[in-house]
Amino acid sequence: MAYLNDNYLKLKAGYLFPEIGRRVKAFCEANPEAAQRLLCCGIGDVTEPLPPAAIAAMHKAVDEMAVRETFRGYGPEQGYEWLRAAIAQNDFRDRGCEVADDEVFVSDGTKCDTGNILDILGHKNKIAISDPVYPVYVDTNVMAGHTGEANEAGAYGKLVYLPCTPRNGFIPVPPKRKVDLIYLCSPNNPTGAAATRPQLEAWVKYALEHKAVILFDAAYEAYITDPALPHSIYEIPGARECAIEFRSFSKSGGFTGARCAFTVVPKTLRAATKTGELQPLHPLWLRRMTTKFNGVSYITQRGAEALYSPEGKAQVRALIAHYMGNAKVLREGAAKARLKVFGGVNAPYIWVKTPKDVTSWQAFDKILNETNVVITPGSGFGAKGEGYCRVSAFNSRANAEEVARRLQQLKW
Amino acid sequence: MAYLNDNYLKLKAGYLFPEIGRRVKAFCEANPEAAQRLLCCGIGDVTEPLPPAAIAAMHKAVDEMAVRETFRGYGPEQGYEWLRAAIAQNDFRDRGCEVADDEVFVSDGTKCDTGNILDILGHKNKIAISDPVYPVYVDTNVMAGHTGEANEAGAYGKLVYLPCTPRNGFIPVPPKRKVDLIYLCSPNNPTGAAATRPQLEAWVKYALEHKAVILFDAAYEAYITDPALPHSIYEIPGARECAIEFRSFSKSGGFTGARCAFTVVPKTLRAATKTGELQPLHPLWLRRMTTKFNGVSYITQRGAEALYSPEGKAQVRALIAHYMGNAKVLREGAAKARLKVFGGVNAPYIWVKTPKDVTSWQAFDKILNETNVVITPGSGFGAKGEGYCRVSAFNSRANAEEVARRLQQLKW
Repeated sequence: MAYLNDNYLKLKAGYLFPEIGRRVKAFCEANPEAAQRLLCCGIGDVTEPLPPAAIAAMHKAVDEMAVRETFRGYGPEQGYEWLRAAIAQNDFRDRGCEVADDEVFVSDGTKCDTGNILDILGHKNKIAISDPVYPVYVDTNVMAGHTGEANEAGAYGKLVYLPCTPRNGFIPVPPKRKVDLIYLCSPNNPTGAAATRPQLEAWVKYALEHKAVILFDAAYEAYITDPALPHSIYEIPGARECAIEFRSFSKSGGFTGARCAFTVVPKTLRAATKTGELQPLHPLWLRRMTTKFNGVSYITQRGAEALYSPEGKAQVRALIAHYMGNAKVLREGAAKARLKVFGGVNAPYIWVKTPKDVTSWQAFDKILNETNVVITPGSGFGAKGEGYCRVSAFNSRANAEEVARRLQQLKW
Repeated sequence: MAYLNDNYLKLKAGYLFPEIGRRVKAFCEANPEAAQRLLCCGIGDVTEPLPPAAIAAMHKAVDEMAVRETFRGYGPEQGYEWLRAAIAQNDFRDRGCEVADDEVFVSDGTKCDTGNILDILGHKNKIAISDPVYPVYVDTNVMAGHTGEANEAGAYGKLVYLPCTPRNGFIPVPPKRKVDLIYLCSPNNPTGAAATRPQLEAWVKYALEHKAVILFDAAYEAYITDPALPHSIYEIPGARECAIEFRSFSKSGGFTGARCAFTVVPKTLRAATKTGELQPLHPLWLRRMTTKFNGVSYITQRGAEALYSPEGKAQVRALIAHYMGNAKVLREGAAKARLKVFGGVNAPYIWVKTPKDVTSWQAFDKILNETNVVITPGSGFGAKGEGYCRVSAFNSRANAEEVARRLQQLKW
């Protein structure tokens, strides 16, 4: 008799975005006129076209696939050398971070990588996760059997939740207790907070002391505007001995539909075998990727490479500036509506406190019904997200301005 | 202290293809002149360009990504509805198999899917795997902790190996003992054997009797030439209650570099919880894909869809006919060289018995040194592959003819 993985049955039924989809659909069916003026600041998906440099490179790559002499079949599972080299040079070495080309693993998404990384880690690790945060960290640990059951607030047993609140500027501090794996996301999804150098230094110090591993999700790194903030955890001395970094082209180059991301696993990073012997994780991740993955589309990799050309870089900067202009509009609109606003300065997300005792889902329904705007309820990102909403800046300027106007019409 | 996954340390160091690469590189460095005439029939990678219908669709998709109004960001993780519908209709319903659109999950590769499927299955299953076979089934089970250590021949403890030999026509028969998960690959990589209807019926009967699940890898289905052979396990009554099928565009449309595949999980397929209650696997795989995957590149999906247009179908047929023409040339060349040959009729692989007591790796070295042709040693696919070599038909016709000539020059 074949057995299934019982851990899946512990997952809370409604993953956040399907539930939002369900409520929006019901609203639109009941209110066909209001549905015409619906504006979406919910899901964190980009709206603007791919940069022209990427488009040109992708057309060229498609043409190469049409001719025997330039056709590409299987590439290296961990990415073409030219893309890994462009990433290591531009994103790391040019910023003073020591990252070798072969420490970069190209993949089809940070969502995939942050889930798959658990493949190479043991089952006995004590796991710390920011609250609120991108739900995939928690869900993939539930699936892997690293948690107990969920309580009413959606918190799972055995996980160590690191509260992110206005008191700590939404950046968690190292716990008193010992943990082995730490998920950090900076700039943060959903709060928009970005860790400072001293904050990351404290985490690296903690991880080195406890031989812990930091899983550092920097998918929104391109949105940092404050020049004092680190873009990579490898800007912190010692991080090569304790951290894995995840990055994505989804939000920098708008590749959510084209699919390209990468993970950095330094060769100096080690973890313990059952018997306590420290061994490097790099060969394990290489083996994982070569055995369970077959590389990213050649066409997509050529598109990603083009983002590092001089034109590509300028186009990415313009794209980011566009979304961050929206963020400013939304921040100001929410502030004028006398809402308490966080984030939106170094990240494309505005984190809005709901007034009075309004819950996240109540606020979601109210904003949908009264202004026909879709946002994301903060409680979907963890128990400490209750009482907040995430407003995404991924939109056209006209839409962002209209959302900012409508928010001011709300009566709480 | 962070712990790693010790199961990775059980993996045999040299994965097959890297070891081939190492030997070929050493040969070429030592013999620069012979390296000029090297021909590769080793790795199972296609060589011909993508079908024009796919190229046109991909250019169009790239153009759509360049314009705000037609730009596509995140798609459904499990694939766009138009692609799932084209697959279900053309590959299954048109052949009389009952498969609903939403039972098709589009992915970036069968290698990924056959590894990832273990995510939703329990750790207590008794696992049966053909020997020899595509090494990923074994390796991913080692990684997941489902095996013991490897012995000298490379066989892992706890796995049930199903010997594929000339005596059973390289198609395994159901074992006397009870197993819970069964990997079948037909047409087979590496032996080129394809299961008949009675052979698949015997497996479905066995699986239903034992409430086992069959993991049916049909990545080479397009190469079947014998009209009596089933293309899908769902042609066998009862398979919807006991089988998952994996398919790929890699070998049909030449998408090894573009990355697209799919997996069928029927809603009627169930497996047991710890307490023995049968529950459907479809919601678990849906949850797995939506949580740990973010969909295939839009551009690639449009390319795959185009393979189902009338022109696309004709172009795929021509591509397959080309490779199967090579297979015929290679079969005949090997036979003329008085080698015993299997496969190559319903699959793009020729499975050649090495003469006398020559081992697979000895044959590899001899063929490389004396004819400057790269093949794949059969022992890399399992202990029962020892004494065989796999010769791939993925090549130009001129190269296939030259390989056939050179094989005849060998003195054993």
